[in-house]
Amino acid sequence: MAQGTKSISSPVRIGICAPSTPFTKDAASRVIALAARTHPHAELVFDEQCFFEDGHFAGSDKQRTDSFLALANDPDIDAIWFARGGYGAARIAEAAVQRLDSVANNKIYLGYSDAGNLLGALYRAGIGEVAHGPMPSDIGRADGEQAVARALDWIVHRKADALDPGLISGQKYAAFNLMTLAMMTGTKLIPDLRDHILIVEEISEYLYAFDRAMFHLCSNLADIGLTGIKLGRVDDIPENDRPFGEDPEAIIKRWAGSNAIAYLGRAEIGHDAQNRIVPFGLLKT
Amino acid sequence: MAQGTKSISSPVRIGICAPSTPFTKDAASRVIALAARTHPHAELVFDEQCFFEDGHFAGSDKQRTDSFLALANDPDIDAIWFARGGYGAARIAEAAVQRLDSVANNKIYLGYSDAGNLLGALYRAGIGEVAHGPMPSDIGRADGEQAVARALDWIVHRKADALDPGLISGQKYAAFNLMTLAMMTGTKLIPDLRDHILIVEEISEYLYAFDRAMFHLCSNLADIGLTGIKLGRVDDIPENDRPFGEDPEAIIKRWAGSNAIAYLGRAEIGHDAQNRIVPFGLLKT
Repeated sequence: MAQGTKSISSPVRIGICAPSTPFTKDAASRVIALAARTHPHAELVFDEQCFFEDGHFAGSDKQRTDSFLALANDPDIDAIWFARGGYGAARIAEAAVQRLDSVANNKIYLGYSDAGNLLGALYRAGIGEVAHGPMPSDIGRADGEQAVARALDWIVHRKADALDPGLISGQKYAAFNLMTLAMMTGTKLIPDLRDHILIVEEISEYLYAFDRAMFHLCSNLADIGLTGIKLGRVDDIPENDRPFGEDPEAIIKRWAGSNAIAYLGRAEIGHDAQNRIVPFGLLKT
Repeated sequence: MAQGTKSISSPVRIGICAPSTPFTKDAASRVIALAARTHPHAELVFDEQCFFEDGHFAGSDKQRTDSFLALANDPDIDAIWFARGGYGAARIAEAAVQRLDSVANNKIYLGYSDAGNLLGALYRAGIGEVAHGPMPSDIGRADGEQAVARALDWIVHRKADALDPGLISGQKYAAFNLMTLAMMTGTKLIPDLRDHILIVEEISEYLYAFDRAMFHLCSNLADIGLTGIKLGRVDDIPENDRPFGEDPEAIIKRWAGSNAIAYLGRAEIGHDAQNRIVPFGLLKT
């Protein structure tokens, strides 16, 4: 019981689905083995849909929707953990969230990257405890076991040291991949971010594309009453034929400034093993 | 006078600036030599700013703005031709258009790709005759001289056979690069597209990114009263690690359909030598 907050008689059942791209059975086995070692209290339920393949996606839009709904509407499941990003959640999030039952409210939902489409739609609808953090797919990274264990620390134990250390109690937060959120503006997936500190991170985008997405995002959020914006990590920037001339922090400072959004510094999120948890909404811990 | 609609005594003066990325003197010389051969009536004025370099850009935001304004506010210039795309016009378009004088109204503005940010801001402000079509940079393409000559056919002679052959007189049009327009939604650069047929084209994007941008664009335009949407060419699609499972036309049909936007078929625009002219607004020819 040293790690636990619940009794051994009620394991934390974590339903895992893939709203975007396919996971692999080998990686799932590694995540299950790690969890058995570090979080014996957790019971991981990988839906078979995680391993479906349909073109780019982990099964058809219907299959990915059905898998998410079956787990989220199951009263015996305590948490929904999105297996992997990649692209695809935007195609199902709006319709899927509309079909959630009341039991979906009693769950944690955890993921990042493309899963941000579902995090946003869930938070917009006021459903569950939504959080931005590592996914089963992180098992494939260098030191990825740290990231997976941190996610389980949050899901199973709500461990405070899994959180981004810069979070402040009493403040509202949301966190997203920049490009994912940029494509959610003006759609039925983006939540109301008034009075929130928004944290964004980016991966594998040219700096000109980062600048363009920041132009778009800050222009769209200029008048909604954000408390401010923070920058997670911006990694794996492709080399262009010439240097861009500004680094990511200078870019976000410029676009935030010209749109009267307060820039509040760096945050500990990103597409890496150090990706810390950011629960959406008012932080009470 | 076989080609001309004006007398030899009044050449058409075309001011060329680079609101995005740098042009080269060698390419400018080739465009000038071509124009001298095919359109002796045109006088091409390449602003020195076209060749400036500042990181990613053809000079600083201020230098690119000043060059555009000097040409657009010059009563002796008949047309503004954007030299090249790449990224950068979004950083200057809103402020630049606000500083245009009344003489800026009497001009054609021609370009595509990233220059769409300026086309959109100009059309939103009701300034000039805005058109989507080839740029001086097209001289570098295979058969690029055709594209450059087509642009000059439009600027100098308003030749009807330079137009996309699918355009219908009495209909309103606008045309953009998909990603450029997706990043303009919700900003002060996007014009009112009510009652317009919108034409989009794309280049060098993965199909998942094309799908994501279509999700974003169609969601944002669902309620504005578009007459419909047409698809230009979608080229140089990078190979992903697996096939996407749909082609570009199936993607646009699906997103247009789910957002109650009429899909109206293909159009003759794209990042290629066959890129035809699409004048913004009501087509009267």
